[in-house]
Amino acid sequence: METSARPSPSYSLTLRIEYPNAVGTLGRVTSVIGERGGDIGAIDIITTARGTITRDITFAAADYEHGQSIIAAVRALPGIDVVNVSDRTFLLHLGGKIEIAAKVPVKTRDDLSMAYTPGVARISQSIADDAQDAFNLTIKKNTVAVVTDGSAVLGLGEAGPLAALPVMEGKALLFKEFAGVDAFPICLDAPDIDDIVTAVKAIAPTFGAIHIEDLSAPRCFEIEARLAQALDIPVMHNDQHGTATVVLAAFINALKITGKNSANCKVVINGAGAAGIATARLLMTYGVRDIIVCDAEGALYAGRELPVAGPGADAVEAVARDTNPRGVQGTLPEALRGADAFIGFGGRTVLAIDDIRAMNRDAIVFAMANPEPEIAPSAVAGIARIVATGKSDFPNQINNMLCFPGFFRGLLDARARSASTTR
Amino acid sequence: METSARPSPSYSLTLRIEYPNAVGTLGRVTSVIGERGGDIGAIDIITTARGTITRDITFAAADYEHGQSIIAAVRALPGIDVVNVSDRTFLLHLGGKIEIAAKVPVKTRDDLSMAYTPGVARISQSIADDAQDAFNLTIKKNTVAVVTDGSAVLGLGEAGPLAALPVMEGKALLFKEFAGVDAFPICLDAPDIDDIVTAVKAIAPTFGAIHIEDLSAPRCFEIEARLAQALDIPVMHNDQHGTATVVLAAFINALKITGKNSANCKVVINGAGAAGIATARLLMTYGVRDIIVCDAEGALYAGRELPVAGPGADAVEAVARDTNPRGVQGTLPEALRGADAFIGFGGRTVLAIDDIRAMNRDAIVFAMANPEPEIAPSAVAGIARIVATGKSDFPNQINNMLCFPGFFRGLLDARARSASTTR
Repeated sequence: METSARPSPSYSLTLRIEYPNAVGTLGRVTSVIGERGGDIGAIDIITTARGTITRDITFAAADYEHGQSIIAAVRALPGIDVVNVSDRTFLLHLGGKIEIAAKVPVKTRDDLSMAYTPGVARISQSIADDAQDAFNLTIKKNTVAVVTDGSAVLGLGEAGPLAALPVMEGKALLFKEFAGVDAFPICLDAPDIDDIVTAVKAIAPTFGAIHIEDLSAPRCFEIEARLAQALDIPVMHNDQHGTATVVLAAFINALKITGKNSANCKVVINGAGAAGIATARLLMTYGVRDIIVCDAEGALYAGRELPVAGPGADAVEAVARDTNPRGVQGTLPEALRGADAFIGFGGRTVLAIDDIRAMNRDAIVFAMANPEPEIAPSAVAGIARIVATGKSDFPNQINNMLCFPGFFRGLLDARARSASTTR
Repeated sequence: METSARPSPSYSLTLRIEYPNAVGTLGRVTSVIGERGGDIGAIDIITTARGTITRDITFAAADYEHGQSIIAAVRALPGIDVVNVSDRTFLLHLGGKIEIAAKVPVKTRDDLSMAYTPGVARISQSIADDAQDAFNLTIKKNTVAVVTDGSAVLGLGEAGPLAALPVMEGKALLFKEFAGVDAFPICLDAPDIDDIVTAVKAIAPTFGAIHIEDLSAPRCFEIEARLAQALDIPVMHNDQHGTATVVLAAFINALKITGKNSANCKVVINGAGAAGIATARLLMTYGVRDIIVCDAEGALYAGRELPVAGPGADAVEAVARDTNPRGVQGTLPEALRGADAFIGFGGRTVLAIDDIRAMNRDAIVFAMANPEPEIAPSAVAGIARIVATGKSDFPNQINNMLCFPGFFRGLLDARARSASTTR
């Protein structure tokens, strides 16, 4: 019944139980949960009446099945009535995570005359006379579109625009809470690149910047380039540049701790998608010379046949040409031999402990694959010097949410017309 | 220096004045403002020091020039220093009128694990498995896109998408304050109908309904029809159906007050654009038989050459064919002779008092032209029985803002898949 994985608040359940109020009963419940690996949080009394007590017990499980097994064990206890089970993550998402709020009062006829007709006509006239006034007299200056087509959602892949919406709402939430930016999710039902470009160009007037997210590679390179060319507001593909930026920050810190030097450091990046390609570019710009990028078939090198084609594939070909100065060929584990740093973005890649043992001493391991890291941090404790993942339930987190809210705060405040991390 | 027009809060100014604190000084200032027709509101003390007092005096003027003439008169008073003048309507619009607000807390790592990764992946998976879950687990169910291309903004005409943004923000504000609907302005930089349709179809996944606004006629008929056909959420062009709905409501009330009967009532509609065409259709559905729609060249009748062409023009042709049963030809004033009701949407049309005198007794006059009514309500008091305009600074207001927030509240709550007012 036990699980070796760590309980995560993202699998947090609240059990409502009712039982005769006798000494020792609660202890039996909490013991059963604890013995089975549930991490108990809040315990609240809901009602007490006629010798019966109702309590809510919240606990985190490691995954769905783990949570269900704990509930079954509590149900099996004599005298304990499980009245209700709520999944806190689903409860939190009910009705969505953001809303529109008024910044001005609309209580009187006078308020209406100023905020709406006839007063607003003077504001519109002012903007018609000078388009720059839109940055002062509308939401444009502080508003970002969080755009996706749902073609590469988290670890789910091509889940579609509707399934991407909770993720984009989450980004909007972080934009507001971390940086005061008003961001709105735009989930595009647009199957081809032309439709995506047409739609984003069309909606641009409302926004001061465009944040692109969860677009599949290599199309994302082409789409970002075409939009950046067409629009006079910054366009930033977060999976590329947001991720590359936080990885570089983590890498610089790891160099400081390990005493390694960027110019001599051998770096292996797993994943030749948006994040891998942009991170390779940014590390090169920073001065790292020896980078090997791997895809599912192993190391990229100049002249290797690549499994990508179509719009944006040239960005992958360029990285294959510009990296891997030693011309290493072979699998990811082969590339890792003697490497100083592993930077992993590769979906369901799994590394063995011996792969990490084969790296140089004071190895840096950024295991950021979704949904599970390439190797469990606990497995390489004492082998690698630095270990981080991409998830917020592990303390050493490298996630672009540490970057994008502030990045766009800066773009908007500077009223930037374009964005770039590698020039 | 005086003006005959009424002061409007939409031309409201706040004067900050500083003067020696002597008895009678404030009286001289307020007298000058009042004598020149300024409508004084709040008077606040800001500071008093060393025998000097600073006050803010807020007053409404009838228009821009009127406000400036009053300021000049105050400046001309001896001993009065005008420190600052603020236009309250512009102040109110600074930075826009709406913002994004968080509905869930993001204070701890656990909050993040549920609202964002890894927890949000389970929400996305659930929607990927069953698209209907998007109505429960995202903002979709309560969210409306307020879409325009800025081709027919208020009385300004083709002002463009940026100039339309403050108006669409105003609509979003009313959506939230009047009906709890989360609406977001989508101002489209899309010159042709195909691009508009492509863009709105593409962004639809985020929304539970589409509100179209300020699109020029007759394109609007074609665009609404194509979108309604393509999408599985309701699409409603507010200038048509929102306006027609409030006009019908006002018309029903006016019939009650005047004792007129819809079946015998002669109605003249001025304006063969979005509002005029849709209102004619809705009045016919309600049972009004004698409707004459006029454009700038006079009454529409079957077979008359129309100044519209291209997509959507067939909607205008159909109304020309289906109305005007008496085959009246001639100008708007000619059509008004013996009419019971005037319903005016016609831009800069001006009516004479004699035009109203020529109507039947107990005439109903809905003078809703923008920016100025076709005839001043004060001019026909005692001649027409019922007078209303479209603006919130006149008490009898017929404006679609009285309709659209509740209309969409109902569409969303019913999870309607389409919207129509005339079937």
